[in-house]
Amino acid sequence: MHIVLVEPEIPANTGNIVRTCAATSSVLHLVRPLGFSTEDKYLKRAGLDYWYLVEIYYHDSFEALKEKYPLGTFYYVSTKAARHYCDVEYGPGDFLVFGKETRGLPESLLQANSGNCVRIPMVSDARSLNLANSVAIVLYEALRQQAFAGLETAGRVNPQLQGTCTKP
Amino acid sequence: MHIVLVEPEIPANTGNIVRTCAATSSVLHLVRPLGFSTEDKYLKRAGLDYWYLVEIYYHDSFEALKEKYPLGTFYYVSTKAARHYCDVEYGPGDFLVFGKETRGLPESLLQANSGNCVRIPMVSDARSLNLANSVAIVLYEALRQQAFAGLETAGRVNPQLQGTCTKP
Repeated sequence: MHIVLVEPEIPANTGNIVRTCAATSSVLHLVRPLGFSTEDKYLKRAGLDYWYLVEIYYHDSFEALKEKYPLGTFYYVSTKAARHYCDVEYGPGDFLVFGKETRGLPESLLQANSGNCVRIPMVSDARSLNLANSVAIVLYEALRQQAFAGLETAGRVNPQLQGTCTKP
Repeated sequence: MHIVLVEPEIPANTGNIVRTCAATSSVLHLVRPLGFSTEDKYLKRAGLDYWYLVEIYYHDSFEALKEKYPLGTFYYVSTKAARHYCDVEYGPGDFLVFGKETRGLPESLLQANSGNCVRIPMVSDARSLNLANSVAIVLYEALRQQAFAGLETAGRVNPQLQGTCTKP
């Protein structure tokens, strides 16, 4: 999947999203202007050592990004969307687009793409979820619909029994 | 739903989880020791002004919490679980239990409750997701299964057309 952050502002959020992308082999697109330097310490800290595992592209505008992927299917996540995020059939390689923390996606973009706007359900007086959490919720729904293809679905308790292993 | 954090360490994560609980009317349980003061500025900042909207309980141990809810159904989220989190039927009022950031839930707890342990799928070499993101993913799957009862599933573009409204 592709994750698109349009003008993200808070470095720790983008760092956490880098970590989520690393865990899911998702591609991350950052649309400028960014509210932080790519050398920001909070960005790096939240991304941990996953930073270099993720394919990240930078774009000067959302239009510039769309021109590079003319066949892409884009979903716009917004509290203003008329239907909810599980009410959509996601495919591999689809783009999930998220706006900036303080204001979300521009109204004009939502109006021009109203058929592809999705909302995360919340109690009626809630302002919004944290951006990184919103990405995780919608991305994992898209992955669930695709049966978590390529991901490890089962772990096991105490996988490394070094202390009880007698083989070299 | 009930969210249980066992010995959380990073204040900004718990703050973000407070915000998620506010958005979903979930109850938050914090099991001591906590790795931060409840007055921590990062905790408050991440929780924004949602802090006072959430029902939060503090417990001295996980056993003490379980004793208070003898009829509760508990699910333990761990990278070591044998089945994935969508492979479970969640009910209203179930408890979703998460371990500390650095080490997850104790192995003994997982072994004693292996039938109720669930994993979030990831690429095989990923260490883990951020704690707040993990909570958001599993909580929203549980809410999805319950058709987001009580949550607002649809918004609308430009809900307040003050500038164009001619009525008083």
